[in-house]
Amino acid sequence: MQNLPRKIALTLLMAALTGAAAPVLAAGDGGPFAREITARQSLMRLYTFNIGTLVGMAKGEIAYDADTAGTAAANLAALAALNQQGMWPEGSDSFDNDGTRALPEIWDDLAGFEAKRKGLADAAAAYAGQAGTGLDALRVGLGAVGGACGACHKAFRKPE
Amino acid sequence: MQNLPRKIALTLLMAALTGAAAPVLAAGDGGPFAREITARQSLMRLYTFNIGTLVGMAKGEIAYDADTAGTAAANLAALAALNQQGMWPEGSDSFDNDGTRALPEIWDDLAGFEAKRKGLADAAAAYAGQAGTGLDALRVGLGAVGGACGACHKAFRKPE
Repeated sequence: MQNLPRKIALTLLMAALTGAAAPVLAAGDGGPFAREITARQSLMRLYTFNIGTLVGMAKGEIAYDADTAGTAAANLAALAALNQQGMWPEGSDSFDNDGTRALPEIWDDLAGFEAKRKGLADAAAAYAGQAGTGLDALRVGLGAVGGACGACHKAFRKPE
Repeated sequence: MQNLPRKIALTLLMAALTGAAAPVLAAGDGGPFAREITARQSLMRLYTFNIGTLVGMAKGEIAYDADTAGTAAANLAALAALNQQGMWPEGSDSFDNDGTRALPEIWDDLAGFEAKRKGLADAAAAYAGQAGTGLDALRVGLGAVGGACGACHKAFRKPE
């Protein structure tokens, strides 16, 4: 009983953080791994947001700006370096869950999956030092980052 | 014309990165700022994912583990330190867009908004050094982080 006020306070805190915790936590497909699937899809969307800026510059659709390019690449590197603990629980695959394209092969080859994750983290870290140095460097480095994305998707993501 | 092959290559790259770029980029409410609104909501969901682990430990629903706690807090600090360039274009507020609770007050007081953002970044950075040092420290520090979240929500987020 003596923990009750603390528990109420923390429940209120969680609600304050999220507005209403449940809808945010239960986004995704609403299944047992909705929280984890939402988190990893959110991470992918933040990758995409920053890569979209860089691709836009590479294609000439957005004017090249060294600060903006460098910041997008630094954000990408920071995101790719996040520890993804808790995001990939066994059972949260595309075979058993709607709303995810994470193939069961991930859990059959966790070392291979980790190697691909590290491949992106390393490519993004290198790119963070390149994208702000000029448009040619931005374009060249994007190939390595895109290769790292694609290597993981090819092996571990269900085609649409 | 000579840029065409490059543009095609980059379009294919973007598709490879995202599976099919359009659905990811056009998530959110589908309006003119869907890309930006999706990005900032993705960031909030990653905050929530990590805070959820910490709140779970604080409430005793998840067993305290120093490594897990420290990693969640470090992730939160890294996320809060991201440069949010491009995520808050003028006009992407709750008055003019469905699917966002970002009040127009943000753009009336950008300095105040930035101060709240920095408040969370600072609180999360401090917390990253505390959460892994024990359950009491995890609980105490959570109050400061929650206060920083709530301060911004109270001023700049539309109530549900």
